[in-house]
Amino acid sequence: MNAIGVVTKEIDEAKGTKYHDNFIEFLKYYQANDLVGSTAQTDVKGDRKARPSQQEDPDLYVHVVKKTNKGIVVRGAKSHITMGPYVDEHLVLPTRSMTKEEGDWAVSFAIPADTDGVRIISHIVTPRQRIDLKAPYNIYGVADSVVVFDDVFVPWDRVFMCGEWEFAGRLALTFAGFHRHSYCGCKPAVTDIIMGATALVAEYSGVGNAPHIVDELTELMIIAELVYASGIAAAAKATKTSSGIYTPMFVYSNTGRYLAGTNIYHEYDILASIAGGLPSTIPTEEDWLNPETGPDLEKYFRRKPGISAEKLHRIYRFISDFSCSAIGGWAQYAGVHGGGSPVMEKIGIRSEYDLESKKQIVKYLAGIEDEE
Amino acid sequence: MNAIGVVTKEIDEAKGTKYHDNFIEFLKYYQANDLVGSTAQTDVKGDRKARPSQQEDPDLYVHVVKKTNKGIVVRGAKSHITMGPYVDEHLVLPTRSMTKEEGDWAVSFAIPADTDGVRIISHIVTPRQRIDLKAPYNIYGVADSVVVFDDVFVPWDRVFMCGEWEFAGRLALTFAGFHRHSYCGCKPAVTDIIMGATALVAEYSGVGNAPHIVDELTELMIIAELVYASGIAAAAKATKTSSGIYTPMFVYSNTGRYLAGTNIYHEYDILASIAGGLPSTIPTEEDWLNPETGPDLEKYFRRKPGISAEKLHRIYRFISDFSCSAIGGWAQYAGVHGGGSPVMEKIGIRSEYDLESKKQIVKYLAGIEDEE
Amino acid sequence: MNAIGVVTKEIDEAKGTKYHDNFIEFLKYYQANDLVGSTAQTDVKGDRKARPSQQEDPDLYVHVVKKTNKGIVVRGAKSHITMGPYVDEHLVLPTRSMTKEEGDWAVSFAIPADTDGVRIISHIVTPRQRIDLKAPYNIYGVADSVVVFDDVFVPWDRVFMCGEWEFAGRLALTFAGFHRHSYCGCKPAVTDIIMGATALVAEYSGVGNAPHIVDELTELMIIAELVYASGIAAAAKATKTSSGIYTPMFVYSNTGRYLAGTNIYHEYDILASIAGGLPSTIPTEEDWLNPETGPDLEKYFRRKPGISAEKLHRIYRFISDFSCSAIGGWAQYAGVHGGGSPVMEKIGIRSEYDLESKKQIVKYLAGIEDEE
Amino acid sequence: MNAIGVVTKEIDEAKGTKYHDNFIEFLKYYQANDLVGSTAQTDVKGDRKARPSQQEDPDLYVHVVKKTNKGIVVRGAKSHITMGPYVDEHLVLPTRSMTKEEGDWAVSFAIPADTDGVRIISHIVTPRQRIDLKAPYNIYGVADSVVVFDDVFVPWDRVFMCGEWEFAGRLALTFAGFHRHSYCGCKPAVTDIIMGATALVAEYSGVGNAPHIVDELTELMIIAELVYASGIAAAAKATKTSSGIYTPMFVYSNTGRYLAGTNIYHEYDILASIAGGLPSTIPTEEDWLNPETGPDLEKYFRRKPGISAEKLHRIYRFISDFSCSAIGGWAQYAGVHGGGSPVMEKIGIRSEYDLESKKQIVKYLAGIEDEE
Repeated sequence: MNAIGVVTKEIDEAKGTKYHDNFIEFLKYYQANDLVGSTAQTDVKGDRKARPSQQEDPDLYVHVVKKTNKGIVVRGAKSHITMGPYVDEHLVLPTRSMTKEEGDWAVSFAIPADTDGVRIISHIVTPRQRIDLKAPYNIYGVADSVVVFDDVFVPWDRVFMCGEWEFAGRLALTFAGFHRHSYCGCKPAVTDIIMGATALVAEYSGVGNAPHIVDELTELMIIAELVYASGIAAAAKATKTSSGIYTPMFVYSNTGRYLAGTNIYHEYDILASIAGGLPSTIPTEEDWLNPETGPDLEKYFRRKPGISAEKLHRIYRFISDFSCSAIGGWAQYAGVHGGGSPVMEKIGIRSEYDLESKKQIVKYLAGIEDEE
Repeated sequence: MNAIGVVTKEIDEAKGTKYHDNFIEFLKYYQANDLVGSTAQTDVKGDRKARPSQQEDPDLYVHVVKKTNKGIVVRGAKSHITMGPYVDEHLVLPTRSMTKEEGDWAVSFAIPADTDGVRIISHIVTPRQRIDLKAPYNIYGVADSVVVFDDVFVPWDRVFMCGEWEFAGRLALTFAGFHRHSYCGCKPAVTDIIMGATALVAEYSGVGNAPHIVDELTELMIIAELVYASGIAAAAKATKTSSGIYTPMFVYSNTGRYLAGTNIYHEYDILASIAGGLPSTIPTEEDWLNPETGPDLEKYFRRKPGISAEKLHRIYRFISDFSCSAIGGWAQYAGVHGGGSPVMEKIGIRSEYDLESKKQIVKYLAGIEDEE
Repeated sequence: MNAIGVVTKEIDEAKGTKYHDNFIEFLKYYQANDLVGSTAQTDVKGDRKARPSQQEDPDLYVHVVKKTNKGIVVRGAKSHITMGPYVDEHLVLPTRSMTKEEGDWAVSFAIPADTDGVRIISHIVTPRQRIDLKAPYNIYGVADSVVVFDDVFVPWDRVFMCGEWEFAGRLALTFAGFHRHSYCGCKPAVTDIIMGATALVAEYSGVGNAPHIVDELTELMIIAELVYASGIAAAAKATKTSSGIYTPMFVYSNTGRYLAGTNIYHEYDILASIAGGLPSTIPTEEDWLNPETGPDLEKYFRRKPGISAEKLHRIYRFISDFSCSAIGGWAQYAGVHGGGSPVMEKIGIRSEYDLESKKQIVKYLAGIEDEE
Repeated sequence: MNAIGVVTKEIDEAKGTKYHDNFIEFLKYYQANDLVGSTAQTDVKGDRKARPSQQEDPDLYVHVVKKTNKGIVVRGAKSHITMGPYVDEHLVLPTRSMTKEEGDWAVSFAIPADTDGVRIISHIVTPRQRIDLKAPYNIYGVADSVVVFDDVFVPWDRVFMCGEWEFAGRLALTFAGFHRHSYCGCKPAVTDIIMGATALVAEYSGVGNAPHIVDELTELMIIAELVYASGIAAAAKATKTSSGIYTPMFVYSNTGRYLAGTNIYHEYDILASIAGGLPSTIPTEEDWLNPETGPDLEKYFRRKPGISAEKLHRIYRFISDFSCSAIGGWAQYAGVHGGGSPVMEKIGIRSEYDLESKKQIVKYLAGIEDEE
């Protein structure tokens, strides 16, 4: 929403269009009805070496196939659309910058999820369900969808960009900048869980104060807090755009998201290293509940005196569900790619970085003078 | 087998026992009948701060509870016993060094898996079964077991150590040294799979030669080859023991295993980074086979020209099964802890390292002379 | 100054002393006369395993040896006092927390550098002086000093703490928190120089846009900006103390300083990797100026067309002076230890971290309930 | 020598030349007279984006400018020639592969260092000389030279390659493979010194057994032993060439050298981290010997009880000379680039790696079948 708000204003200023009014009206409707929306940005993209206009099939990036007085018709598919099945509206925007020839791919709009021609194909992942050792973690899951637009009609008042290719990259990157900023807030919460689980399993095993464990926990604190600090810096250095909406300082959105994205596997490694092998070999809940096998598991699941076998079953089962499972693997991938992969943050950082001024500092220090 | 062969001989030499004969007879029987055995080493261990003899329950490490003319009776449980349900024999040995007071815990023996009082409780993990897109990877799984010894009788000719506490650590570490050596051979094969999958998904996406991808692939090559090189060095520097069995040079067993163990999550990170988010969001095989959704997936699963949608489905589905799944999580844990955790290799390396000679070099270089 | 200002107020509030008035008067004098001061904090410390009161020689931490109506007499030595020879005043404060028995070591004061009994022994380091290829970098150096207090008299109005052992740790850590915050601002400037030099040498060699070089430069940007972001966060989350002085949020002072301290050698590695071996083998300026050898160096110092031999000499000579020199080694050590070593930041971070709340989150998720 | 021996034979076999006879005669002469030789391989190279034949000045790579009945005349310059001033003979070989048009640059020969037209311009670096605290480390230094060949005549019996461009890369890489193999043996000795110094300074400070220090020392052991193991593997898997000379398995020469080259700054970081700031701020030997300042330094240089102030001065002065000095910086650069930079090892590793077989493994596992 923020990104569309910012860029529709900029397009209107440059082109005399009315997209920002569309946005404001849509926003009022959205808030009045308390709707939930997806961000449908990532096209399926086809050949990674070719631009949108160079693909064998033009539909590999969502594009306009027809314009009428009443609206536009779009075709293509967006992928990795988290929570796809639950949303009221899809908010569609370009995934990258476009060239002059790619005006048809420079398209942004909002559309109800049940519009004709919109199809979703979802990938659902949930933790293993519990029989008796119920746990809040195990009652939620996640759904990602491919959202197909099969010649979908979008009325003009729902269109936020249509052909203004010069702004496609700006909209894509502005969304990324906001999204990565929010990542700086949400990603440390994943680290919190990893940190808490690591600390708890170490405590229950009687080694909560072992120096190498304390050291690893501190690593997790540092990762979490640096990501969060980068988010604070992005907010503290925010700038007001012509729409009145503030944008975070994107370099800090990017550095925070980058640090998170390059550490997620390392964090799981810390958890696995300290938890030991048990999360991967723990007998099933069925065996724990089975009167033939339960007593053995009760007797031999023992760590620090005073910690019950059930607590040990619960913490190891949680770690197993969290890190030895389909949803654990999903979370690792989401940690790397959600909100933009680290390689994208690197590109974002250097593309706007004033490297030239650093060269000038060194030229000064080294006594290098450039000829006029 | 190797470790028991080496250490039974050493015990016999020091104590005048006959364990090595027991071992030789058992080995002949084992080979003649082409049996499969487990190594049942890792005790459940209880409180990590307390020694075997200091646990609230003495059974938390396998120990001898009775000795008769005919044999011994043992109690306790071993955990993380891979392939537990399939073996003919369990080979049991201590998990650590023991003190003089811990003679009852210094016990090693072989016992048929169906002996009275032996119970196994298994954790089974397999890839998701395929309907139509059959793949060899998906037809195998793995089982780890808790093996309980509930007052199991072991005849004397199956006993390899019973009370010789001075040799408990030697046996534990000799096994570890052999096991970590074999890891230096088997672990690079896991890296081979990660490397092949990374290379293939990049090739199919049209970016097989992108510099940062080539660079990451080279990282994988280096990890695999350094682990393997360490194994070669361990073999090239092997020494003959009194039993006639050669032991690899353990420092190199340890350095190779350590490198593997500290890189497994990093390797999965490389695979995830280059594969992109799709392994975690790929629609199910059911949707691919479904006539309503299949055509969309066929149309939009497109990468490098000439690579069929089915090939893309197969490679992404494989990566998903390999890295976004219970068995993927299992493999990460096995990569960290199988054969001994990195922290154990570090202990192994420094415990036998001649650090003193390095200090002497520096004393010489710095002109430091110690007083007599 | 900030730390003394904060903590003197707190001592006065708790103890009814008048240290904060002393501080205010001193500050007025200091500002009115535009003085320069050192922070003399780090004691020589002796045996690292023993506390101040347990040392063989009590003077290994600065302490009070006598109190009179007029003032106190102190003895001991502070080390690593940067710019020691140039300051007007030494500001002395404890280097760590103290116990009840260590009141004599809980001492803070300001004293003119030329007071009787104050001696400085300095270590000076400067770049190699230039003959003809003059460069601003080469005209500055740095001096660190051991500052000895040989029974130095300090009048009461210059004393900021004397015996209030409960506040020794608070003062030490408050200073550290401010100092590490300033590090978050100054340290990225060192990275700027490394980044500029790396970029310039790559550009002059004709490979400024090579992918692996662009990637390494981005690494430097990320390090610099995350350190800086952590400083911004520390400021944005500052809290007002009873003295009216704001203290930065120390966890972010620490995370920023930690990231800087653990990356300084890595940054030099990047510079060295991209500069190639030449900074370590470049012939001397004498050879460049010598008519017998100069023409060879002129002819063979050639990189990208259009870059003069002199420019190449200047940039390589700068990098050599910056990274293959006594002052380069000094800067590496300063990067690790200046403002507190990474191991100290780790201690600082975890000592104030709310780890318990993270365990509670995991207990909730895992369904673990603690008994009352 | 080894590389020239191997490749001259291969050239002769392919081309019917007599270079291998030249090599054998030269080797006999070299051994009979117990000579010392340099390897003069690295050309000054000019623009890194351009090939030898594309440089503005053809002399930026050593090349043949004239051929006569009696021999050849060569021109150009080689740089980074370690020990240049001390050698009897320069052994010259190409620095890279050449194209058909670059036959004049495909040249290898041996020439006495005092031949007409050979000039060396050296960069000398030594530790600071000691006055009284003499130490073996401080009496040696190192010299690297630019070796200029200003129309130098080389008789035919000293020529090992002249125009056989197809073998230029082979000779360059064979030398690199041998050189990197020797690195796997010599580089761990540098780590030994860093390890010994780290251990000694920790011991003298009374923290030799602190967990984080023991852990860092183990890191150094692992680096040293993995590099060495890679060298053992390269030797164990050596293959005999047509000349009768064995070549190490180059992939392991490369992996070992790579690990060393990417860790040298990390090793210095470990030393600096544990030594603390003192190596960078230690007062000079003059101050230690000065009767006015010596007693203060004697009194306040105190660590673990029983370690004399002189020992502390010696160990810290050694570490200062080793890591806060021009020669320390030189050693860091040599650690990165000597024998070939890590980026070169990566290229070497992947260029000969059988990545295709890894893709085949994954195709099999994933059920991917290629069409004929």
